[in-house]
Amino acid sequence: MARPRISVFIATSLDGFIATEAGGIDWLSTVEDEHGEDYGYGAFIADIDAVVMGRKTFDMVAGFDPWPFGDKRVIVLSHRDLGPAPEGVERHEGDLALLVARLGEDGVRRVYLDGGETIRQGLAEDLVDDMTLSRVPVMLGKGRPLFGPEVPYGRWQLLGSRHYPTGLVQATYRQLD
Amino acid sequence: MARPRISVFIATSLDGFIATEAGGIDWLSTVEDEHGEDYGYGAFIADIDAVVMGRKTFDMVAGFDPWPFGDKRVIVLSHRDLGPAPEGVERHEGDLALLVARLGEDGVRRVYLDGGETIRQGLAEDLVDDMTLSRVPVMLGKGRPLFGPEVPYGRWQLLGSRHYPTGLVQATYRQLD
Repeated sequence: MARPRISVFIATSLDGFIATEAGGIDWLSTVEDEHGEDYGYGAFIADIDAVVMGRKTFDMVAGFDPWPFGDKRVIVLSHRDLGPAPEGVERHEGDLALLVARLGEDGVRRVYLDGGETIRQGLAEDLVDDMTLSRVPVMLGKGRPLFGPEVPYGRWQLLGSRHYPTGLVQATYRQLD
Repeated sequence: MARPRISVFIATSLDGFIATEAGGIDWLSTVEDEHGEDYGYGAFIADIDAVVMGRKTFDMVAGFDPWPFGDKRVIVLSHRDLGPAPEGVERHEGDLALLVARLGEDGVRRVYLDGGETIRQGLAEDLVDDMTLSRVPVMLGKGRPLFGPEVPYGRWQLLGSRHYPTGLVQATYRQLD
């Protein structure tokens, strides 16, 4: 089977953070609007066959009610037992590229890579095919960065950008080979 | 006289750097096109009465031929003598807010704040009125960041965004009081 397409869909502050130092994401509510604008997330996730996330992201979303991924296949990268987990959630220990290859063998066509550490690992291993980056019009000053020094130099092709009345600017990029 | 309007106009990599660790900006050439697209810089600088920059930025641009600021008033923040400097270049030692007040007394209407340290200082002192941020579709991984921990939490209002055929995405923000 072919290698699945690996996609990133994530929002950062103007200064590139995905959360405050304490992990807070309250500042994301500055772009919530009265119409329930989802910034394309619904259409994106509908095209996804499997979600791969790190342990920190899982521990944060595990408490969400309802569970945000429905019955979609979710794989958590972790060395430790997940404890009670929603249906469809698996744990993977070890190499991300091996996991991606295995998902391809299972017929998975497109994977959503979620969480800062997992995204950086995917970029470091040159596995990410496309990224949708949303910039929330807030400066945090300090926080948990999306990118980091393990991300290699690379050029990306802009597929498109748009802005929303809330001030969020979204751009989608494809990796240039 | 009124306090001048303080503006920022700067490009970063997708991961928020304005230069490589060694100060390199060769990666900016990835968005040079055959038509000499200036991404609005000409119109921006035409509306500027004075440029305020840090010493590192001055030392970099001092070698440019021709001098990029024409006969515009340029103030370099530095504790050390500038050496031979183009006409119109002054040195300022001390408080940025005091300098801005003095420029206002001189009838300066709009100031361009240039260079990472100077921009961060302006943000830290709550002096920046508007920012035009251009995202070059390149990941650097490491480098000299535009923002930093001295930048305070703040919400910004998007005034507009656009993208260019080279993949550069530009957004302009106004500080929300």
